[in-house]
Amino acid sequence: MADFIAAIKQRVLVLDGAMGTMLQERGLKAGGCPEEMNLTAPDVVEAVHREYADAGADIIVTNSFGGSRPKLAHYGLEDKVHEINARAVVLARNAAGPDRFVAASIGPTGRFLRPVGDADFDDMVEVFGEQVRAFAEAGADLITMETFLDIAELRAAVIACRRYSDLPIMALMTFENEGRSVLGTSPEAAAVTLEALGVTVIGTNCGLGVEGIYEMLARMRSVCSTPLIAQPNAGLPQLIDGQTVFNATPQDMVVYHQQLLDIGVRVIGGCCGTTPAHIRAMREALQGTEQDWTPPARRCLLSSRTGVVEIGGPAACAIIGERINPTGRKAYAQELREAKTAYIRREAQAQVAAGAHLLDVNCGAPGVDEPAALERAVLAVEGVAQVPLVLDSSDPAALERALKVADGKVLINSVSGEEKSLKGILPLAKKYGAAVIALALDGSGIPETAEERLAVARRIRDAALEAGLAPEDIVVDCLTLTVSAEQKRAMETIRTLRLVRDELGLPTALGVSNISFGLPCRPVLSSVFFAMALDAGLSAAIINPRDERMMDAYLAAMVLLGKDVRAESYIAAYADVSAAPAAAAPQDAPTGIRDRL
Amino acid sequence: MADFIAAIKQRVLVLDGAMGTMLQERGLKAGGCPEEMNLTAPDVVEAVHREYADAGADIIVTNSFGGSRPKLAHYGLEDKVHEINARAVVLARNAAGPDRFVAASIGPTGRFLRPVGDADFDDMVEVFGEQVRAFAEAGADLITMETFLDIAELRAAVIACRRYSDLPIMALMTFENEGRSVLGTSPEAAAVTLEALGVTVIGTNCGLGVEGIYEMLARMRSVCSTPLIAQPNAGLPQLIDGQTVFNATPQDMVVYHQQLLDIGVRVIGGCCGTTPAHIRAMREALQGTEQDWTPPARRCLLSSRTGVVEIGGPAACAIIGERINPTGRKAYAQELREAKTAYIRREAQAQVAAGAHLLDVNCGAPGVDEPAALERAVLAVEGVAQVPLVLDSSDPAALERALKVADGKVLINSVSGEEKSLKGILPLAKKYGAAVIALALDGSGIPETAEERLAVARRIRDAALEAGLAPEDIVVDCLTLTVSAEQKRAMETIRTLRLVRDELGLPTALGVSNISFGLPCRPVLSSVFFAMALDAGLSAAIINPRDERMMDAYLAAMVLLGKDVRAESYIAAYADVSAAPAAAAPQDAPTGIRDRL
Ligand SMILES: [Zn+2]
Ligand SMILES: [Zn+2]
Ligand SMILES: [Zn+2]
Repeated sequence: MADFIAAIKQRVLVLDGAMGTMLQERGLKAGGCPEEMNLTAPDVVEAVHREYADAGADIIVTNSFGGSRPKLAHYGLEDKVHEINARAVVLARNAAGPDRFVAASIGPTGRFLRPVGDADFDDMVEVFGEQVRAFAEAGADLITMETFLDIAELRAAVIACRRYSDLPIMALMTFENEGRSVLGTSPEAAAVTLEALGVTVIGTNCGLGVEGIYEMLARMRSVCSTPLIAQPNAGLPQLIDGQTVFNATPQDMVVYHQQLLDIGVRVIGGCCGTTPAHIRAMREALQGTEQDWTPPARRCLLSSRTGVVEIGGPAACAIIGERINPTGRKAYAQELREAKTAYIRREAQAQVAAGAHLLDVNCGAPGVDEPAALERAVLAVEGVAQVPLVLDSSDPAALERALKVADGKVLINSVSGEEKSLKGILPLAKKYGAAVIALALDGSGIPETAEERLAVARRIRDAALEAGLAPEDIVVDCLTLTVSAEQKRAMETIRTLRLVRDELGLPTALGVSNISFGLPCRPVLSSVFFAMALDAGLSAAIINPRDERMMDAYLAAMVLLGKDVRAESYIAAYADVSAAPAAAAPQDAPTGIRDRL
Repeated sequence: MADFIAAIKQRVLVLDGAMGTMLQERGLKAGGCPEEMNLTAPDVVEAVHREYADAGADIIVTNSFGGSRPKLAHYGLEDKVHEINARAVVLARNAAGPDRFVAASIGPTGRFLRPVGDADFDDMVEVFGEQVRAFAEAGADLITMETFLDIAELRAAVIACRRYSDLPIMALMTFENEGRSVLGTSPEAAAVTLEALGVTVIGTNCGLGVEGIYEMLARMRSVCSTPLIAQPNAGLPQLIDGQTVFNATPQDMVVYHQQLLDIGVRVIGGCCGTTPAHIRAMREALQGTEQDWTPPARRCLLSSRTGVVEIGGPAACAIIGERINPTGRKAYAQELREAKTAYIRREAQAQVAAGAHLLDVNCGAPGVDEPAALERAVLAVEGVAQVPLVLDSSDPAALERALKVADGKVLINSVSGEEKSLKGILPLAKKYGAAVIALALDGSGIPETAEERLAVARRIRDAALEAGLAPEDIVVDCLTLTVSAEQKRAMETIRTLRLVRDELGLPTALGVSNISFGLPCRPVLSSVFFAMALDAGLSAAIINPRDERMMDAYLAAMVLLGKDVRAESYIAAYADVSAAPAAAAPQDAPTGIRDRL
């Protein structure tokens, strides 16, 4: 069997069409279990596969969409999970032969992970793992996960795949007309989360016709670099005489082929209402088409359940709210010990309202069970805020607990150049699809010069690549030292920012306010340092977004750096602030910020 | 006759000692005119010169210290000015022969320039010019100007020298025990002003003994790169039995020889109370001494009557107060038309109190006689403020009027790359010892890119060198454009700052606040741009020092850039400002500047 990954580099593959409707037409009763037919009516299943193969499909999808233990349990088939799924592969292979690919299908379990439902992440992984092991044993070429509505469940499925096989993965979410999944996930958020998990092909199926599917994929393409898969329904469903029907003709399905190819769709198939005739039309539409495609460069993007934030590149510097951190905050530390989350929820909301694009979450304090606290904090923040998270801990156990419940692609804060840190943190980032902040220091402390910090950053980068991370997912913290203690090193930090950008091409981060520790009127000093850091290309600033001075510096710098085009954000923020005009007479008051009050 | 300038490069020359006391001992009556003896007792004068020549002096100073028209007029000798001064050179030459230098002496006139006295600058130049012409005709090798108490008068004398001869010039001020001239000029201010005027050797004579003279010269050396001259009295004067006596022995006079040599003293002689025996001791002390000396690099320094300010190099960015400018200030424009100076005086004081290191003075407005107004403004500012001036005009006539009455080394704002500007401004800067701001634009407008601006700056620099200016005295204005109109060019300006520093090594200037024109809450945007400019090495900022935000940015940046060592100025400025500590609870107010109120 040819290599699937190599194949989609060379050409666009055609996937098959709907299975459920075909089985209904061939005897599946309403309320019956389609997957049971793998055992009870294997010929029927195999015949459907064969029809698609004959129609020109390169990939035959197994009849195992509802083959998970919870789904099969509805039919009392929980002791047949392995058999049904393994058999599904065999039937598909019988039709596919050696020259077509068999994609083993996984669908949602119908259960929801905490906090939406009561399913536990590890249990969910094991549920999917059961199917995955059967697929792998039976010789599937790849796994395709279809029609997922919940990115959290899909994350668990992908992680199960990675744990129990090394098969290529296609992961498909289903979006509504409004451009979000029913649980609020945007195509961008899905794509960013899935690419980070190492999914081979990302896409969308069901829910929409070919035009809607194209729109979702174009949005995915704007944030990811993987090949895409399009699996539209045969038009939008229409209810006619109590029957749901899909009216798109085979020719309707191929109207968008060229646009799909242009954005890097490498697998095209059909979902509800599609038939072998539709698949044949797709196959034919590909004849003679130019099928070259160069993947776009990867970028550093983070995601929540609903949205994405870019770090570095042409994006404006991202603001990471720093206030969910017990250091110096006794009330919060006390809440952590009491397992309460009121502070966390208030600060999450307040910081986002003040302009935070991401939220740092730190639960490390004496007397606190950090793994439990960090998991609780992540769930609390996700309950009130829609921004990607920065998990701030050096404890792998705490990080793993939190990574399981985090909805999107998070940023781990941080890994250092120390061996123990590299070994503890990088595999977690790889497994759970996270980016990492790389602290430019190691066991010998904070390097004196920018060049030495660059060297540490380079070593961490190399270790991260070794661990399977993408270089774009390494954000280098260039280290802010307290200027009152280390005056000469302040500009060394600024120089490190430029060096890391110019020499490594990596995004950068900085905890800005530490610069002014021990000095009076800290916001003045911190905000000026912030302006210099932004000028030096800082990609992500860990600051207090509720500090007005810091946000002043940010908004002004974005105008100067051309990120706030036509100063629209700046004008919106300050138009109603009555700053005195340039002083016109000697008795004028100073034109400082006091005039704003 | 050997070249004086070449000679002091190779070795330390010995100048002769006192003339007046020697003549008194040889028949000059109390209240008599020493210079008249050039005509009435030439043998006596020549004999004194010969004694010094025999004692080992390399330079014989003419008996013409009081030879100016106002001084001779006291004795009814105003019609013998030319004869007395020319004769002074002949007598010195008779004693000096061809192998020693004849230095023609000029002393103060006893009159003071406006506004201290009633003398007019041009008249003063002509008074000195009369002596200079006589010296040049009679074959003096150089001119030495001694015992000046008023830097303004000495400026006029040097300018007269330059106008009527091309002889090398030595210029010496006399300082009091407190380290200032009687009119308040510090050795640093004197040295900076004199070096800019093209004086060959700068120094001090009279007033102090050798230790005090060394201290004054060491302070001069800290700001200038010319050779120095030391001409101490024979100790401090003591009044014994109604007689002023100088008690330092010849051996006392040479105690500091090595220190003097170390700081680049290239001419050593004596003033009051020194005799041929003192000169002989100096000559002997030089035998076998190491006489190598490498001049220090020139720097860009400006001066007022009392102090100096550095632009560029390791110095902190200089603040140029921008508020004495009628653009957008109707009340000031009206005062200019009425020839009043109340606004100017108030703003000069207020800006210096707010932290200005220099003051920009602009008098260009409709209906204003700019040359008269600029002269009046300079006198008004100098009456209340002790900082160097920035003369802000493109009118050479106005500039020349102002340059005549300005006390120190001013900065001319500005010359552009246009031919007319170069031709009109650069010769004035050379003649009056000024530095210039070079606007990086020419007839084709403001260049788009940093590289183009650099090219214009380079052309202006070359023209300035051609006109005889030192490269250090060219400060490049890198041009602030309004970000609301030219968003992409904001960072081009910052880039220009770095390029000019790195490629040309010249100091830079910027009118900062123009960046925010047309946008709300201008101080926020301007101060952030200012922080970036400071990071890029800005040497002089033309700003409103009464804008609290701008000074916040300045003071903070100086800490970060290591210019405010141990943050002493920052702490002094903000220690009493009660900024809230880093917020400790979610109900905290933002920690912005509002907390300072
Ligand atoms: Zn469907
Ligand atoms: Zn389907
Ligand atoms: Zn003297």
